[in-house]
Amino acid sequence: MKRVLIITGPFFEDIEVQYPYYRLKEDGYDVVIAAPERGRLEGKHGYVIKADISFDEVNPEEYDALVIPGGRAPEKVRLYDSVKSIVKHFFEKDKPVATICHGPQVLISAGIIKGRKGTSYAGIRDDLIASGVEYVDEPVVVDENWVSSRHPGDLHVWMKKFIKLLEA
Amino acid sequence: MKRVLIITGPFFEDIEVQYPYYRLKEDGYDVVIAAPERGRLEGKHGYVIKADISFDEVNPEEYDALVIPGGRAPEKVRLYDSVKSIVKHFFEKDKPVATICHGPQVLISAGIIKGRKGTSYAGIRDDLIASGVEYVDEPVVVDENWVSSRHPGDLHVWMKKFIKLLEA
Repeated sequence: MKRVLIITGPFFEDIEVQYPYYRLKEDGYDVVIAAPERGRLEGKHGYVIKADISFDEVNPEEYDALVIPGGRAPEKVRLYDSVKSIVKHFFEKDKPVATICHGPQVLISAGIIKGRKGTSYAGIRDDLIASGVEYVDEPVVVDENWVSSRHPGDLHVWMKKFIKLLEA
Repeated sequence: MKRVLIITGPFFEDIEVQYPYYRLKEDGYDVVIAAPERGRLEGKHGYVIKADISFDEVNPEEYDALVIPGGRAPEKVRLYDSVKSIVKHFFEKDKPVATICHGPQVLISAGIIKGRKGTSYAGIRDDLIASGVEYVDEPVVVDENWVSSRHPGDLHVWMKKFIKLLEA
């Protein structure tokens, strides 16, 4: 069974964690949620989820793919060195990475998206461009291992492309 | 292309509308949201969606399947005669119907679940039993055209079974 890691934190965008979580479980993937600390985690809209593991406990070798949802969580979790190491692993090993909305803020901090093509929430577009990303305003952009979308309205095309990559 | 109708209203359980909405779109279904009135509709958790059509405008003949999510919406929409007629159509024509959480309150009002087998949010279990339902405490129950689940934690198994029925 393939294992997928979700990296998030306080004030996550609820549906951007929930949709991939249930969608990947639907296809039989083992989905693990990592946050600054294990346990109770509340989203922007008040949904409560359980973080299975803390960032420090993550061994990225054990996972086949990574999902970074949006909300206000990425601005918080991008400050953790452990998160930057985890993200670098997935890019260096060419494992599938899905980001949506503010998710790519974490990729900027990990310093691994120069020269890549992707999309995000419009409000951080210029940060991606300043980091050397070729920004594309499309519902979903697939650039090798990186599958990016803009906002919750893109959830269905985002997961469709990501699952296709996981199955490849 | 198959068309699926979602019946909901104010204070819907956000994820229980959003998950099937995006999941069905992911597989190419045309998904239409019906509510007491067209336009802006806010969920219990503050997500805002757009109702495409009002109950009075729905012609159930145009749809292949029905989804009734939970939240506080079912207690409001079950009062509409138009909703009761719509629901009856799907059961009489043996078209797939998915309910979750408080969704079956609408089926109780439509008077079409006596002798059927299903599940729901535990808090309305006794109402289902009083209406003649064989209540089963399982993540998903499939009884001919009716696919029911208990709460958001069942979303993945709920949609997996419902889509299987849609594809049959």
